[in-house]
Amino acid sequence: MKELVIMTDNPLTPYERTVAHEQDVSRFRHPYPTFDYQTRINDLAHKIEATEADAALLPNPVDLTYYTGSSQPANLYVPAGDGKHARLFVRRAMAFTKQEAGLPEKYLKQGGLSAIVEYASHVDTIGLPLETTPASLASKLADALDADPINISDVVLTQRAIKEEEEIELLTDAAELYEVAHGAIQRRAAPGVTEKQVGGEVVGALVAAGMDDNIFFRRWDARLPAAGLIASGETLSLVSGHAMTVTGTGVARSMPWGPSKRSLESGDFLVADIALNRAGYHGDVARTYVIGEATPTQHEWFEWTLALHEAARDAIEPGVPAEEPYLAAYRRAEELGVADWLCGYAEMQAPYIGHSIGLEADEEPTLMRGNTEKIREGMVLTIEPKLIHPERGAVMIEDDYLVTTDGVKRLSTVPQELFEISI
Amino acid sequence: MKELVIMTDNPLTPYERTVAHEQDVSRFRHPYPTFDYQTRINDLAHKIEATEADAALLPNPVDLTYYTGSSQPANLYVPAGDGKHARLFVRRAMAFTKQEAGLPEKYLKQGGLSAIVEYASHVDTIGLPLETTPASLASKLADALDADPINISDVVLTQRAIKEEEEIELLTDAAELYEVAHGAIQRRAAPGVTEKQVGGEVVGALVAAGMDDNIFFRRWDARLPAAGLIASGETLSLVSGHAMTVTGTGVARSMPWGPSKRSLESGDFLVADIALNRAGYHGDVARTYVIGEATPTQHEWFEWTLALHEAARDAIEPGVPAEEPYLAAYRRAEELGVADWLCGYAEMQAPYIGHSIGLEADEEPTLMRGNTEKIREGMVLTIEPKLIHPERGAVMIEDDYLVTTDGVKRLSTVPQELFEISI
Repeated sequence: MKELVIMTDNPLTPYERTVAHEQDVSRFRHPYPTFDYQTRINDLAHKIEATEADAALLPNPVDLTYYTGSSQPANLYVPAGDGKHARLFVRRAMAFTKQEAGLPEKYLKQGGLSAIVEYASHVDTIGLPLETTPASLASKLADALDADPINISDVVLTQRAIKEEEEIELLTDAAELYEVAHGAIQRRAAPGVTEKQVGGEVVGALVAAGMDDNIFFRRWDARLPAAGLIASGETLSLVSGHAMTVTGTGVARSMPWGPSKRSLESGDFLVADIALNRAGYHGDVARTYVIGEATPTQHEWFEWTLALHEAARDAIEPGVPAEEPYLAAYRRAEELGVADWLCGYAEMQAPYIGHSIGLEADEEPTLMRGNTEKIREGMVLTIEPKLIHPERGAVMIEDDYLVTTDGVKRLSTVPQELFEISI
Repeated sequence: MKELVIMTDNPLTPYERTVAHEQDVSRFRHPYPTFDYQTRINDLAHKIEATEADAALLPNPVDLTYYTGSSQPANLYVPAGDGKHARLFVRRAMAFTKQEAGLPEKYLKQGGLSAIVEYASHVDTIGLPLETTPASLASKLADALDADPINISDVVLTQRAIKEEEEIELLTDAAELYEVAHGAIQRRAAPGVTEKQVGGEVVGALVAAGMDDNIFFRRWDARLPAAGLIASGETLSLVSGHAMTVTGTGVARSMPWGPSKRSLESGDFLVADIALNRAGYHGDVARTYVIGEATPTQHEWFEWTLALHEAARDAIEPGVPAEEPYLAAYRRAEELGVADWLCGYAEMQAPYIGHSIGLEADEEPTLMRGNTEKIREGMVLTIEPKLIHPERGAVMIEDDYLVTTDGVKRLSTVPQELFEISI
């Protein structure tokens, strides 16, 4: 090993942690509004009162972002009924948390499980988001409190489903980011270029433009590639099991969807379905491209898909069941004679046409057959019909819509067209 | 709504699903070896016999990749003692699964929970990987089988810790991918360019070169940006709570680590710590750069870090406790007078210097104080010392090592140097 001089007069002296760790970090980040976290916590406390849970305990970073503004490692404890007794137990990085959490300082306490147990008055039942908490952690938390766990995933999701004004602005920023992906596709797609190379151009441009290259997905067993789902030619009709959409094959069995090593060819359809995470809020937009000039058949296939999109979109208004946009698109597909190809074919066909988006890319409600939950004003929903055919390939057009008093407002901005890539 | 011609003579006829869905997908993917999945399952069946579980049930895509070759939605049921009674219950995409799973066809069954319950002979206890299974799913599976859940996360991780020859080749391919990131950093980093723009160049180049832009991470509450952790100047000493490393601040509270909007300045250190997922196997490599010419102080800071790296690396051999590489680095840091800055400072200092990697970026064992688990031949471990100081910034150098009969072999290939970016 190389000889190193050992410092006799060490210039490094212990440094007051507060000076360094309490630097203002917001200057390195996107602007972010100050939400009224206390009201959100109060609302949760009231909603918990209507469940069997005596209190809620939220360890998930996404929920922590929603209720506190910080996603640092912590647990938020909220007794039923009264939000003012809620406390955020911070496991690490208190200095960051103090800057990020928009709560009075008395809400913040340093500590882990033993601190929670000490603070909590006796609870017989504890509400946990069991859909997004690992089983080993849920047991540990419930055992420590000597309480039965109650699943409150629905309570949290229902609250998060109605977006506030500043959230809608953030969701708009995210949806608009597809413009950057659109530019990258138009720049890079060409005969001989692989789907994966197009994906590289897309994700590179999106990250440089400020996207966080990690899409937050509720579904625990399906991780979404940050470059989005990009498929072309033969890969358009190869539908993998992880989603009811145009999946492509991916380059590996461990993540069997997303862009592959297939080279684009003149005349191909290319579908890009891209989830976008900006400042924590997600967009989800898809467009279809043709490498070269589109044939009349390709135009026709696109026009039908757009007609299905419009049918689903026009079905959205407050009070309508969440299955209605799908049913409206299905009826239109029957009229057009293409119902066999709506959102997949054969065993991979799905009675599904969109979903809510927010702090996660796949929130509730899901717009699918059988879902009678009511659509409400202030929800932000995607509409994503696709026609998938083993020989014709696939066309998809997805946009993000705010539910207004009497209909929708589109948040995503790229024109609803079939795009031809000049070659 | 635009008038569309309804087809009277519909050219679309139902298409035999086998023709389309059973296309060979391997041509769109990286080459992948055929592992001996039956032996892996047999080994698991024997190991389960030594636990309190009567059988194992694995729903996690990463475990499914390891034991079957496919990560499509499915559950692998393995009775204790005899692997030949194992069955893969496929929930969706059977055509894909048949191609991907390297198991005799009799192992594959279509179906979900009710099919498993029907097949399983009576079990009192069911082994589940409770660290990576959501609580609601674990309850559902255990309830359906009328069995008590037993955590078998350790059993699976211990088996996965010793890598087979073809796995080492895949891990080498992943580790070598850092060359691409290294090129992108040298190309893009310059005064006035933001960390996020450097991150875009890195992830864009990596995806174009075949990386999967989703890093598989066991830790449920910390998602890793695909562009890696890139920090510079002041952000080097701002250590967020999600990892014991140079984290940077990120651009959003919802993912408070990774590249930020900070612009690089002449004289800055820049640290890039990048996890790489290629064909399902991970590399994890970090290097330090200086924007412009390095000062003598910066060189010194780097030489010390390299000395700590070498001390940890030289401590690795089969039979040694997993804490020993950390302790060796700590002793060397004390000799050099820099122990106060080893792997963080003040409240964010961590007694930790590396970890195992494989199908996930953060496997066991973790090389940290107090871990007495023995290092074994065939493990692949990272060594990642860093010196983090609130004024000097940070230096890090991380590489991936295969544990051999009497020491290590380095898998990552970029020279262990401090790199100067010409400006």
